[in-house]
Amino acid sequence: MIVNFKTYPEATGSRALDLSRILDDVQKETGIEVVAAAQIIDIFRIAEHVDIPVFAQHIDPQPQGAYTGYVSAEAVREAGGRGTLLNHSERRLGLAAVEESIRRARDTCLASVVCANNAAVSAACAALGPDMVAVEPPELIGTGVAVSKAKPEVVTDTVALIRAASQNVIILCGAGITDARDASSALELGTQGILVSSGVVRARDPKRAASDLACAMVRTA
Amino acid sequence: MIVNFKTYPEATGSRALDLSRILDDVQKETGIEVVAAAQIIDIFRIAEHVDIPVFAQHIDPQPQGAYTGYVSAEAVREAGGRGTLLNHSERRLGLAAVEESIRRARDTCLASVVCANNAAVSAACAALGPDMVAVEPPELIGTGVAVSKAKPEVVTDTVALIRAASQNVIILCGAGITDARDASSALELGTQGILVSSGVVRARDPKRAASDLACAMVRTA
Amino acid sequence: MIVNFKTYPEATGSRALDLSRILDDVQKETGIEVVAAAQIIDIFRIAEHVDIPVFAQHIDPQPQGAYTGYVSAEAVREAGGRGTLLNHSERRLGLAAVEESIRRARDTCLASVVCANNAAVSAACAALGPDMVAVEPPELIGTGVAVSKAKPEVVTDTVALIRAASQNVIILCGAGITDARDASSALELGTQGILVSSGVVRARDPKRAASDLACAMVRTA
Amino acid sequence: MIVNFKTYPEATGSRALDLSRILDDVQKETGIEVVAAAQIIDIFRIAEHVDIPVFAQHIDPQPQGAYTGYVSAEAVREAGGRGTLLNHSERRLGLAAVEESIRRARDTCLASVVCANNAAVSAACAALGPDMVAVEPPELIGTGVAVSKAKPEVVTDTVALIRAASQNVIILCGAGITDARDASSALELGTQGILVSSGVVRARDPKRAASDLACAMVRTA
Repeated sequence: MIVNFKTYPEATGSRALDLSRILDDVQKETGIEVVAAAQIIDIFRIAEHVDIPVFAQHIDPQPQGAYTGYVSAEAVREAGGRGTLLNHSERRLGLAAVEESIRRARDTCLASVVCANNAAVSAACAALGPDMVAVEPPELIGTGVAVSKAKPEVVTDTVALIRAASQNVIILCGAGITDARDASSALELGTQGILVSSGVVRARDPKRAASDLACAMVRTA
Repeated sequence: MIVNFKTYPEATGSRALDLSRILDDVQKETGIEVVAAAQIIDIFRIAEHVDIPVFAQHIDPQPQGAYTGYVSAEAVREAGGRGTLLNHSERRLGLAAVEESIRRARDTCLASVVCANNAAVSAACAALGPDMVAVEPPELIGTGVAVSKAKPEVVTDTVALIRAASQNVIILCGAGITDARDASSALELGTQGILVSSGVVRARDPKRAASDLACAMVRTA
Repeated sequence: MIVNFKTYPEATGSRALDLSRILDDVQKETGIEVVAAAQIIDIFRIAEHVDIPVFAQHIDPQPQGAYTGYVSAEAVREAGGRGTLLNHSERRLGLAAVEESIRRARDTCLASVVCANNAAVSAACAALGPDMVAVEPPELIGTGVAVSKAKPEVVTDTVALIRAASQNVIILCGAGITDARDASSALELGTQGILVSSGVVRARDPKRAASDLACAMVRTA
Repeated sequence: MIVNFKTYPEATGSRALDLSRILDDVQKETGIEVVAAAQIIDIFRIAEHVDIPVFAQHIDPQPQGAYTGYVSAEAVREAGGRGTLLNHSERRLGLAAVEESIRRARDTCLASVVCANNAAVSAACAALGPDMVAVEPPELIGTGVAVSKAKPEVVTDTVALIRAASQNVIILCGAGITDARDASSALELGTQGILVSSGVVRARDPKRAASDLACAMVRTA
């Protein structure tokens, strides 16, 4: 389970650290691996204090050097980051940049999670060799209407297309996932994990929201 | 054989029409299908006067409507265009935009040729279902050093990766192709055609340059 | 009065030519200068057949050469274009690109109309030396609610800020302008012209819509 | 004096902190205000340990919320940042985005330094109301050839154009500034400070390089 902090105020600065500690507890209590996809600016502050892996939400394909304002894979690694999202629908990348970023992440020992908006794009992403692909129809992001319920065929098509070419890449399912049933059905459709955001970050009780999702994953696995 | 006019002055306005007429002759004389990938602004002017297909160099994924300054697939079709290049290394597109543009081209009966900078990206492009994929290492574009000579493994890797997944997509080879030997070796490495630009457009004798390439393709095929 | 065709189907291909002929008539009947800001692909087809100036909706700052898929100022000029919009809110440009594009337009004898979303940006645009600045709050574009009615202070602030620095640049007012009163109030607020789109292009009777706006401008001037 | 760390390995992670401590010493020894423009990921780590202001190299105009992978002004503030560069030639922004980012920086009590590539763009930037404008001809960045020596007219034109409209904005001079003479001539041409990068960051002895520049500023002021 990857929790995308986005740039929500509830998941910024000291509150980003608080939320990460909660996710750390959830991982310890449930055994489900939980990842905090935090803002770049908070990675160092969080990674010092928790055991769960902290991911960036984005890295740039540029190497280290004269690239003012960019985020290098090496800097994420050095700050304690262990992976990165790429090509989130809110932060789309060029096709060549996705490939370069995956390669740079691999060279820096960062895990790469490429987001895709539909089954065809998911298959294209898988061809680029990332560690994980997360399929997220953008029209459902933040709605509370889970893709696994509203558009299960997007998930099953994605699984079918990717598995026809590769057995290794981990497939995640995102967009609108809020409660235990959403998480269960995501796994039942053939994915190996979930990508959530507002369902946890903006929940009245984030601890409980994350626990419910993790417990559903334990039961379904 | 696709000839990319880019925005070279030699292939703009009335000279774009002259060049297209030359390419029309080459197609008639050699039997090799030649495509003029002209500037958007010249498509209408050319398509009225030649029999060879005229392609755009780029379309935008936006539908028709309130999209000031964009190029819609429908407008290209209506002006007489028959296809489009997409994601040229000089005009890279987002991953999702490539997929959307291929889909829009198909819906408008435009052929789509997606350009890719290496074998992995070529395979990702093929997964998106275009009519053709053109592999072009950007560092060789415009150099006169042909990819088929300098980096044959990029071409053979591309062919192998794409053919493992699809038999249908046409594979083109570009970057640095200038003379008959470059064209022959491109086909010998397993591609079905070539994408050329300055080698024809800026040649002292474009008719002869294009004829030489087409004849080499006839001999090798 | 500049009429922005956007990529509306009603203003594409042969219908773009029809609309331009209507605007040509309106100019002849009212004496108000009317500009057709057409799609790039239609500029040549239109410019041959009408007397009113045809503008592009966008040009790229790149010079002529190895720039696949871009639109050069020279090609617009050669196709019969007489000017260009720049930085429309639907096609925003980088700050440096705005300056480069204005410079390239001037060097090619194309008139430049830079669009700006508020008064501060309008003043910044004016500092770059274009022929015209068009202020258009993007939240009103296409609404039918005219900026001159809904946000007159944006227009008066723009006029005040620009005139404090320059007397030469022509100031246009856009966004939501639909009827005669909108056009009159735009001029009364201190602008020298209007930028309209759906109010004419998608009107049931475009001839009448354009005539009404032009007549109001005659009366107010 | 602003020192731009870019994404140089010498100014990343723990080495970014080391360099910031050096700059802190230089400020204390010379009395010249020194700013560390660090990578986003290092701001928190640095700001805890030094007295000099730490700036971001870039912020995004997006507000806090569902904006995966972006950098909000609020997060920079909360991590201890005190300002930000904007529109560096290596990280150009849209014209409207520059204006929005300046406004968001102001609302969050971050100082804004807008970079401009020539005098006209500098004047446009000044019209947007930032705290500082830094003029940096991109062709000189990283060359060791100082703009104040190679293109003094760019600097004097910038000062003249900006001062004609505003007395308040601070004008900085960047690009190629390496030694004491470069710093002196920058101030003599009418600017109030300098923006340096490789001249300090990649110097054999960064302490000495920064001290030399600061001392020259003391002598010239």
